[in-house]
Amino acid sequence: MRRVQPGDTVLLVSDKDHRCYIRTVEAGRKLETHRGFIAHDALIGQPIGLRVYTHLGFPYFLLTPTTEELIRYIRRKSQIIFPKDAGYIIMKLGIKPGSSIIEAGMGSGGLCIALATMVGDTGHVFSYEVREDMQQLAVQNLARVNLAGRVTCKLRDITAGFDEVDVDAVFLDVSTPHRFLDQARSALRGGGVLGCIVPTVNQLTEMMEALVTHPGYGFVEASELLLRSFKTLPSRVRPEDQMVGHTGYLIFARAVIQVGYDPDKVMPISNNVAQS
Amino acid sequence: MRRVQPGDTVLLVSDKDHRCYIRTVEAGRKLETHRGFIAHDALIGQPIGLRVYTHLGFPYFLLTPTTEELIRYIRRKSQIIFPKDAGYIIMKLGIKPGSSIIEAGMGSGGLCIALATMVGDTGHVFSYEVREDMQQLAVQNLARVNLAGRVTCKLRDITAGFDEVDVDAVFLDVSTPHRFLDQARSALRGGGVLGCIVPTVNQLTEMMEALVTHPGYGFVEASELLLRSFKTLPSRVRPEDQMVGHTGYLIFARAVIQVGYDPDKVMPISNNVAQS
Amino acid sequence: MRRVQPGDTVLLVSDKDHRCYIRTVEAGRKLETHRGFIAHDALIGQPIGLRVYTHLGFPYFLLTPTTEELIRYIRRKSQIIFPKDAGYIIMKLGIKPGSSIIEAGMGSGGLCIALATMVGDTGHVFSYEVREDMQQLAVQNLARVNLAGRVTCKLRDITAGFDEVDVDAVFLDVSTPHRFLDQARSALRGGGVLGCIVPTVNQLTEMMEALVTHPGYGFVEASELLLRSFKTLPSRVRPEDQMVGHTGYLIFARAVIQVGYDPDKVMPISNNVAQS
Amino acid sequence: MRRVQPGDTVLLVSDKDHRCYIRTVEAGRKLETHRGFIAHDALIGQPIGLRVYTHLGFPYFLLTPTTEELIRYIRRKSQIIFPKDAGYIIMKLGIKPGSSIIEAGMGSGGLCIALATMVGDTGHVFSYEVREDMQQLAVQNLARVNLAGRVTCKLRDITAGFDEVDVDAVFLDVSTPHRFLDQARSALRGGGVLGCIVPTVNQLTEMMEALVTHPGYGFVEASELLLRSFKTLPSRVRPEDQMVGHTGYLIFARAVIQVGYDPDKVMPISNNVAQS
Repeated sequence: MRRVQPGDTVLLVSDKDHRCYIRTVEAGRKLETHRGFIAHDALIGQPIGLRVYTHLGFPYFLLTPTTEELIRYIRRKSQIIFPKDAGYIIMKLGIKPGSSIIEAGMGSGGLCIALATMVGDTGHVFSYEVREDMQQLAVQNLARVNLAGRVTCKLRDITAGFDEVDVDAVFLDVSTPHRFLDQARSALRGGGVLGCIVPTVNQLTEMMEALVTHPGYGFVEASELLLRSFKTLPSRVRPEDQMVGHTGYLIFARAVIQVGYDPDKVMPISNNVAQS
Repeated sequence: MRRVQPGDTVLLVSDKDHRCYIRTVEAGRKLETHRGFIAHDALIGQPIGLRVYTHLGFPYFLLTPTTEELIRYIRRKSQIIFPKDAGYIIMKLGIKPGSSIIEAGMGSGGLCIALATMVGDTGHVFSYEVREDMQQLAVQNLARVNLAGRVTCKLRDITAGFDEVDVDAVFLDVSTPHRFLDQARSALRGGGVLGCIVPTVNQLTEMMEALVTHPGYGFVEASELLLRSFKTLPSRVRPEDQMVGHTGYLIFARAVIQVGYDPDKVMPISNNVAQS
Repeated sequence: MRRVQPGDTVLLVSDKDHRCYIRTVEAGRKLETHRGFIAHDALIGQPIGLRVYTHLGFPYFLLTPTTEELIRYIRRKSQIIFPKDAGYIIMKLGIKPGSSIIEAGMGSGGLCIALATMVGDTGHVFSYEVREDMQQLAVQNLARVNLAGRVTCKLRDITAGFDEVDVDAVFLDVSTPHRFLDQARSALRGGGVLGCIVPTVNQLTEMMEALVTHPGYGFVEASELLLRSFKTLPSRVRPEDQMVGHTGYLIFARAVIQVGYDPDKVMPISNNVAQS
Repeated sequence: MRRVQPGDTVLLVSDKDHRCYIRTVEAGRKLETHRGFIAHDALIGQPIGLRVYTHLGFPYFLLTPTTEELIRYIRRKSQIIFPKDAGYIIMKLGIKPGSSIIEAGMGSGGLCIALATMVGDTGHVFSYEVREDMQQLAVQNLARVNLAGRVTCKLRDITAGFDEVDVDAVFLDVSTPHRFLDQARSALRGGGVLGCIVPTVNQLTEMMEALVTHPGYGFVEASELLLRSFKTLPSRVRPEDQMVGHTGYLIFARAVIQVGYDPDKVMPISNNVAQS
């Protein structure tokens, strides 16, 4: 049975008023909820999953946050990248333990948290942000969930390009991603993936124009994801009345190396022929 | 620059006819495509991202597959879990490097590949399957992409329960998931996540009935994801004419420990009071 | 140019605060808006389409309401059938000038307004409602837009059946439509269309069970419609952030006459054979 | 009971192979199906809704087509406007018995059939088309279902404008609708509705740019409709695997008369003030 240790990131969430709190447990601290407080010391040693109570007797469940919850319950100043999109981005960018990735436009840090979670201790995230207040918020959000060590933050415009090379993926969450295709291509390893998210069809069109003609990219794709939640009352199962109608268009392309076909000179072919 | 080494899993994909091949590179082998062959030896040492050619001069791009491509291009005998769903499942289950997870119903192994990718070398996937032919196919698919070592496969009905305890997540891709809630709860750690996917509203309703009344689970959610792809011709950007209308309903719940509130006896509270 | 006459139903709508008022113009009356009043006499003789002003100088456009607006701006006590659904229902039920239709469950009268609009002076709507307050509201809404003459309202449970026979269509907006299949079949002409709307998957399943086995119906269909509105700022065209996630499942079936095939006796065939 | 008469438009549809035939019944004619023929004379006098048989014994149901079926089963050379869109267009344009409407771009005539059905004998549709082959097909489709008398077809480019004035609605199904806003405005009565459908986001953006700045229009809206069909097997109710992902963006605007506010001169206000 897993029990809470100091240093653990825990989620306290109510099934009554849906409020929730994400905290790193530290001896001697106190968590103030809207319905009374809970001493961190009272949590240490408790089994994860337990229903615990504030000093006023209001119940919360003691959980460890999933990646979806880390994103959903972030402190935010900006539109965040939703978990539905973050999950798909991770699949499309090929993010896995050990990946290196550049992100431009940290926002509140939601996607960064998901990326840093997935790359593990052997991977790394390089995050560029131009607004100091956003960077500070994102860094706080990362620190709160013990992920700051996997992220290098840079307060800088990306027009001059990125410092890193041979990264596995670049994700642009900026307003004019089509202006940074060269910079991203220089940072990407061959076969690496470029991703971006844009809210408007104007940006989607601009990005398509820039991407499909750029010699450094291939396999351009665009899509959008709609998440529809259901009410869970068993006798009245149905989709929720309201849903998020739009978050953004997701665009992906592959860093390719275009080499013309020369049967006499080009390595792959001559090798092939030699060998067959 | 990353260059192909023996043992690497590569993806050869055509931007002409959209065919693709996922292979582990091995000296001396030959990849037969629909348009001629490519010797593995010709690939070794080549930079990832390069356009390479078959002995007939037909071009393919030499890439490393993303998780989305690993799933999409799997050999399959059954309906697979789509990348859009797999990404969201990973976010909701809280899968990350080091996670331990039970999966029941391997199918062709697509979700298993995604899970095994994300848990890394420090995590593990325990996969139960009742049909031998499906298990064999899934194991082949895992082996083909070098992930078999992270997965323990069991050919068995799950009515008798799972061998593992304290796992972080259980995912059920079976036709009657509502019958296995006790088994899943016994295997889950407190706070662990149960997930399942069902295609029909009949199953969705049955699952809601079973889940919301089960004392071992809380925070029941159900949803569905719609992925809409766009055509990428810059002068005619628009959604594709056809889309996948339905894959399945995704259901998630949290393993909780329900303990009644007793201000005199219950640990959390008495601790709180003592400390306040 | 069309000018307002007494007796016309007009829509006054603001492009500033989006408030709107539907009224039948009557000499001597006054329309009180949230920003001052407009005398009906000031509207008479004005061209439709004109921007008019309240006595406080607040502008409204003087329009004639479309069917979509008649529904959208109805006074309501209940969930209404949305215009997106009403339009599709009309197409599927085959409603046109001259149609006769039974509706059970008037609600606030929104669908009834659409049906009464489309059947014209030569068609008719028979509306059953069991709640007196709802019927009164619906009748007021119909009267307000000069459509009461095309609708016969009956305050009655439909378990005992409908008074009409040989109607072109029956639409059920009740909570247990599967219980009234016989009643609806008795009222429908051969080839007539049964339609219904239900919010939950439980009802959808029940209705499928009842419909596909009922000998009086064929061509059973179920569907749902999602309407996604776009922001119209030209430089930032994109779907709205929020959308209606669910209104209801629409179910349609055809009243058929099942006669077995008997090559010697059955009219159609013997005729055919005789004639060939 | 309604029985087939010569001159009736009937639908013969199979619940086995889903083939269907729309015909106007005429004594002495023969309907050739894929599974044998049926003499029109054998249909005359039969009740609508009956299962009838070809001379080979293959069953069809004898129905009268709904508007949705008239559109769905049209002979087509071009992408048609789908019933889901046609129903919504009718609601938004305010089409009803007696309406006059201009349509530009007849295509195969599907929307025209829906419009002509709804306007009844007292309304009229003016249809402009620039391609002779399309116009001929549309006219045949209209004639086949007895609606040609309600439609005036003009083989002409619309750059020079429309012949009609004071129509209730104009619908543009052309590739550059933003070029014809003046022409449409001249034809529309005040308060009339302009509608159009465009497949691409490029056209959507262009149309928004033109519409929101045009002084003759107000209340600009854009939307799209997604129709999701369900499988109807009662024990396995679920959405269809495939769905139509996109038909087009629907854009609507209102013909308005913009008059500035002058408290001393402008009629509506001075009247108001005089009267209050």
